[in-house]
Order: sequence, then C-alpha cells, then structure tokens
Amino acid sequence: MTESTARKTERSEKEQKAHVLTLPLADTRVDREPHSYERWLVTKLMRMAGSPPVRFRLWNGDVIEPEHQEVSFTLHLKDPKALYSLVANPNLAFGDLYAAGRLDIEGDLPDLMETLYRAVHAAREKWPRWLDALWKNHNPRATGIAEAKENIHHHYDLGNEFYQLWLDRAEMQYTCAYYEAPDLTLEQAQLAKLEHVCRKLRLKPGMTVVEAGCGWGGLARYMARNYGVKVHSYNISREQLAYAREESRRQGLDGLITYVEDDYRNIEGQYDAFVSIGMLEHVGKENYPALSELIKRSLKPNGIALLHSIGRNRPMLMNAWIEKRIFPGAYPPSIGEFMEICEHSDFSVLDVENLRLHYAQTLTHWMERFEASQDKVADMYDEHFTRAWRLYLAGSIAAFRAGSLQLFQVVFTHGGNNQLPQNRGDLYTFPAAPEEA
Amino acid sequence: MTESTARKTERSEKEQKAHVLTLPLADTRVDREPHSYERWLVTKLMRMAGSPPVRFRLWNGDVIEPEHQEVSFTLHLKDPKALYSLVANPNLAFGDLYAAGRLDIEGDLPDLMETLYRAVHAAREKWPRWLDALWKNHNPRATGIAEAKENIHHHYDLGNEFYQLWLDRAEMQYTCAYYEAPDLTLEQAQLAKLEHVCRKLRLKPGMTVVEAGCGWGGLARYMARNYGVKVHSYNISREQLAYAREESRRQGLDGLITYVEDDYRNIEGQYDAFVSIGMLEHVGKENYPALSELIKRSLKPNGIALLHSIGRNRPMLMNAWIEKRIFPGAYPPSIGEFMEICEHSDFSVLDVENLRLHYAQTLTHWMERFEASQDKVADMYDEHFTRAWRLYLAGSIAAFRAGSLQLFQVVFTHGGNNQLPQNRGDLYTFPAAPEEA
Repeated sequence: MTESTARKTERSEKEQKAHVLTLPLADTRVDREPHSYERWLVTKLMRMAGSPPVRFRLWNGDVIEPEHQEVSFTLHLKDPKALYSLVANPNLAFGDLYAAGRLDIEGDLPDLMETLYRAVHAAREKWPRWLDALWKNHNPRATGIAEAKENIHHHYDLGNEFYQLWLDRAEMQYTCAYYEAPDLTLEQAQLAKLEHVCRKLRLKPGMTVVEAGCGWGGLARYMARNYGVKVHSYNISREQLAYAREESRRQGLDGLITYVEDDYRNIEGQYDAFVSIGMLEHVGKENYPALSELIKRSLKPNGIALLHSIGRNRPMLMNAWIEKRIFPGAYPPSIGEFMEICEHSDFSVLDVENLRLHYAQTLTHWMERFEASQDKVADMYDEHFTRAWRLYLAGSIAAFRAGSLQLFQVVFTHGGNNQLPQNRGDLYTFPAAPEEA
Repeated sequence: MTESTARKTERSEKEQKAHVLTLPLADTRVDREPHSYERWLVTKLMRMAGSPPVRFRLWNGDVIEPEHQEVSFTLHLKDPKALYSLVANPNLAFGDLYAAGRLDIEGDLPDLMETLYRAVHAAREKWPRWLDALWKNHNPRATGIAEAKENIHHHYDLGNEFYQLWLDRAEMQYTCAYYEAPDLTLEQAQLAKLEHVCRKLRLKPGMTVVEAGCGWGGLARYMARNYGVKVHSYNISREQLAYAREESRRQGLDGLITYVEDDYRNIEGQYDAFVSIGMLEHVGKENYPALSELIKRSLKPNGIALLHSIGRNRPMLMNAWIEKRIFPGAYPPSIGEFMEICEHSDFSVLDVENLRLHYAQTLTHWMERFEASQDKVADMYDEHFTRAWRLYLAGSIAAFRAGSLQLFQVVFTHGGNNQLPQNRGDLYTFPAAPEEA
C-alpha cells in the first residue's frame, strides 16, 4: 500500500464514520431515503410509548405501520431532524414540531392525544430509570413574585380579544365549567360553575369575600349580583383587570367589587370567604406553606375557603411543552400535595369534588369555538401560534379524558369552626344552571 | 463534732433528702396536707394545658383555683399518687385515674373534655420538645394479622348484649351516623348513613360488593334488602359475625350475603364496589400500600370504592389512653396520609365529605343510652369498666366537637375509569332518612 493509498483509505473510513454518525442529522433533505436505523428508532419510540395504534409517515412518504394494531391515526414527520428531536425529548418536541408544522396529524387530534396519553401512562411504569430522567421536564420555571408576573403575563395578557373568540359569552370564564347536565351550553355550564362555587361558600348578603386570581372578574360580578356580597379580587394580569373593571362599572357593581392589581401574597384584611379559581396551578408547591398562612390570617373564625385547581392522582411534573410554551411555572398538585396547604394551618377539609370530565367537556366547547375562529386567530398572531393553541386545547381535552389531569374543588375551614352546614343537600336544592344563557 | 454527732447529722440529711424526694410519693395518706411543690405542680400542669377554667380539689379537700378564669369544672384528685401519675403522663393517666375512681369530675363530662381538648390544642404549640416527647403515646400496638385479631377481639368481642344496650335498634351501627336533619333519631340517622353510602357507591340491582370489616353486618343487609346487590362481608370479630349471620338468616337475605370470617387482607374476587366503614382506623399506616393494592385488584375497571374513617386535620398519634385501653393499634389518618392509599395505585378521588359534627351527635346519642343503662353495664362488667366507657364516649364527643378528630368518607375509582356520575345531585334527590325508624 502506498502512503497516498493509505491516507485515502483512512479518509474514506473517516468519511464513512461521519456518514454513519452525523450525516443523517446533517442531511436534512426532505426527500432522502430514511436509514434503516431511523426506521428502527421509530419502532423503538412507539414501543416506549406503549405501542399505540399509530402509523408513522416519514419525510419521503415511507410509512411504518404499528405492531399488532389497527391504524387509527397517522403521524407525519416532515423532515429527518424532527425524528431526532422527538426521540431526544418527545414531551417537548411533539408540541414544538406540531406548532412549527414539521409534524402533522391525520385523525381526530383530541382522540389521538388521549390514545397517546393512555398508552404512555401504562408503558412508563416499565421505562428504565435513565429514560424517565431523560424525558422528564427539566428546569420548570420559578414562581417568586417577579417570575409570577412574567409567567402570568405570558399567558393571560395575550389580549382579551383573543380569549373573547372562544370563551363563554356569559362571564369569560377561563376555568373548568360545571356540566350539571350533559347537554348544557358552555354559557350555562360556566354560570352553573359560578353558582356551585357560591353555594359551596354558603354566601349570604352582606358577607365579604376575597378572591385570589380573578381572571376577567366574572366570579366577583356573579357573587355581587346574585348574592349581594362585597368582593376584593386580586390579579396581576393588567389586560384582564382592565376588562373586569370596565364590566363591573357597566353592570353598576362598583360599590360591591374592588379589583386590586397586586400579587395574591399581598392580600390584606379578614373575610367571610376566601376563594381562588384556577390560580393554585400557578402558585408553585414551594409557596404552599405561605399560601396556607395567608388564608389562615385572611379568613374569619367561621369563614369558608374554596380552592379550585387542576390536579393529579399522584405527584408528577407538568408536561414539558405545556409548562415551557403555554403555562410557564405551572404545577398541578395531587390531593396529597394540596393537603400541605390544609395541614400546615390545621384547616379542616369539609368537601372535595373532582370535576375531571367537566373540564374535558369545557375544553371541547372551547376548541369547537377556537377552530371556528382559527382564521381570525392566525390573522391576530400567526400560523405557529394557532397550531400551538390547537394542540394545547386538544392535549388538555385528552389529559382530562385519560385521567392524567384532575380538577379538584376543595372546601375547608379553620379547625375549630363548628358553624358548619348540616349536609351538602343545600348545594342541590334547585338547578345551578340558568334555563337559558 | 463527735463521730456519733457527725453520723446523726449525716443520717438526718439523708432523711431530709428522702423526705423531699420520695416521701410525698410514699406518703399516700389521703388526708395528709399537700406540699407546697405539689400545689406548684398543679398550677404548672394547668398552665401547660392552656389554663382551662378548671379548679383542682386535692385529696384532703384543699382547692386550687384556675388563674384568671371563672370556674366551670372541678377535677377531684383523690390521692397524692394520682397527681404524680397525671404529671408524668397526663394522656394515659387521666383515663386510668378516672376509670379507677381516683379522679372525679364535677360538671358535664363531654363539656369538660372539649374544654380541655381546645385548651391543650392551643397550648401544645408552645410546649418544649422534651415535654411533647414525654407526653406522647409511646409504643402503639402493631397491626399485623395476628395482632389485628387481638386488637379487634379486645374491643368488638365485648359481647353483643353490651353493644345492644346503647347502639341503634335498626342496624347495630357502631360508626358515625348521618344526621341529614339535626332532629333525626339515632335509628333514622344510622339508616340515613347506610343509604348515603349506597348512593355514593351508585349501587344498582345485580351488582357485587365486597365489604372490609362489617361490624354486625348492617350495611350488607341494607344493601341486599334495598339495592338487590350481592355482598361479601369480611370480619375477624367472631361475636359480631354470629349476630350478623343470624340476622341475615332471619331476614331471608342468605342468598345475597356471604359473611366471611377472615382478615380483609385475604379478600378474593373482583367487585363493582369496595366499601369499608370504620375499619381503616385499625389498619395501620404501614399497611396502606398493601390495602391500596388489595383494592386495586378487587375493584372492576368501572368499580367505585368508599372508605369511611375517623381522621385528623394533620398527622398526630392517637391519644395514649384510647389507643392502649379502648382501641389497641388504632390510628386515624389525615387526608394527606390517607392519600397514600389512593396515590399508590393511581386511584382518582371523586369525593371527600367530612362528617365530624355528625359523629359528635352520634356519640351523644350513644352516651345518653349508655348512661341510662349503666347499672346493667356495671352488673355485666364492673364499675371500672363502666367509668372507662363513660369517659371514652364523653372524650370522643369532645374530640369531634373540638376538631381534634374528623370523620372522612372518601370515594374513589381507578384512574382510567370514565363511567363517572355526572354530578353529586343524585345523592340528594330525596331524603336519605326514613320518615320513622
């Protein structure tokens, strides 16, 4: 072998190695043939996900059928890099790729997501520990006062016009509705939720209420209008507060409602009721003892507190994509974790209700309206935003249907309070939903 | 100083020391003067107990008034040793001394106990750690299969005749009743409890139910009679089972009910409902994961489970006297601790209800009947037993009134079950209590 031949061989070996190890990542041509190990990766990924009835269509049109399963859905990976992102961090990449249009889905989106959630839920019990560690949500956002402001701004200050496109027209509720009957409209179910909450708090005219996180202020207005109570509502989303104040003025409720632009941690005074609908998800577990002490000092001796929050059957990190792209810093607690709030201040839990499937139905109603307005959304933002939100809504429907998320309403009071309702029959004396809304 | 004088002085010093340190304990004459440090001990004890409005009458008739308080109750310590026992271990000694007649009480017994519970609850936050350690319940009984048999025998095999003296005449329920309305009789409220439980389980004719710990079998008979379900009920109290079987035969329910004399851990088969009323207190925290797995394998995919148990607002050891003398091995969990049962098997909690004040009322009804039959009880057992049970009933009334004990009904199902009731309105469609009972 001459020296030059030897060098050539060496180079060619290097080139070959480079081809094996880096070329597929570098070769992003969307019409190139998939390598055999790329097909193997897809099969492996599907097995790790519990072998759902899903077909993969690759960038060049090649398909990989699921093992031993009828096909119900097709995932279309539009470029080779998408596959590698998906394998490295499926929780985050699935959403990012879908939003960017690099992954597409044939079949009903919520149904696919539910199928995936159920399959993964069953399969992950058998994952090796390194895989669980690799795929979990790393570095969720903090929830200090400064971060909370950013976290909330990121989501709730997207513009009231945007939320008006698909939330209920009754009270702009961006939380789980209460489908007292399965055929209620979104408006009826949201009003029924507000009524159900007021009944659980056993409100009477002249009472005082403090609300931590008030959204567009609908609960405060409902309470003032229908129960004649005085409400102090705290929120750090400026856009939401502007709407809330205007609406309260329009309805002539200014004398009963004070909307405060401040962090819930700065609540002052003592009230007959403490209520928070859909804020606990943003509080962060590390702040539960402080929240507990806040409720303890804000609640009169016979006062009642109600926290309404997304939750879990057992402690689990938030889905990475939702936590990073949609709800920074969000964490839904299990009841066991939630109980730190109650046990820390010797509160007595009176009532826990789980409205999981009500949230699936609420989200289905939202998604229908969202889909009907998606051209407008794309005009207001862009196609990437529209796709991200479609996936977020569909994924949330799926998570509540599959049982990976729960919705808890927890009612509690000071440990020594004996002024308790005789039973819960008063919550059900007549329908909570208006006949028409 | 001569040798003999020196020896005398030495002896007299020893005698003096002996006098200071041991004489009061040795000198058990019930008419002797209390020492000044004994009076100091009483004052100190009352301060540690949060200065309740309680007067002490000592063995010789001397009284010690409470500081800055109107007197509502008098504790009469009948001998000097009683004081030392009380100081060394008040949780255990209070009951033992009362049962033995060495401590007597002037004033309403449940009221006194509630006053003491509330005062101690507030005061113990400030106790030094050594005092908390000294006074806590040491070495509670284990709850393995063998110990469980002894623990249960100790309490539930006292004789059916004894329990018939003061439990309801409808279904011999030795658990919290449901006072749907405040003026129900004990019989009505116990039947309302059984009805409430059946509704929460959403029973339908032909369903199958397994019951862990069935007492005298009343729930099984109620379910079979009123819902036409098939019930397997487990119990390890032979006395209770004999009664349950006879009663089931008498009512012609043998075809629907099987009473099994076995530990709940040996439950076999799969059922539409898993129910346990008042057994969890005896299970022991260390057995919660196993109980969780048992429920998981015993419950059909769409089955519903209900556990009804005494509980706490926060983790706390059982009162020493109750645990040692009345309910060996008993431990009422906080909801946070209870959640280990649910989280361990990915159960979804649907409903938690707290019936704390219902148990106070149930116990008040029991105590009225017990007091009316106390001569019979003294004939069946003895005065010591009668006094111990009077204190146990009064103390339990007080604990539920003061909020040191809670009563939780927790309804849950498999995490993936979507066959859920639309809402809880069906629990309240018509009164659960019969008009007369």
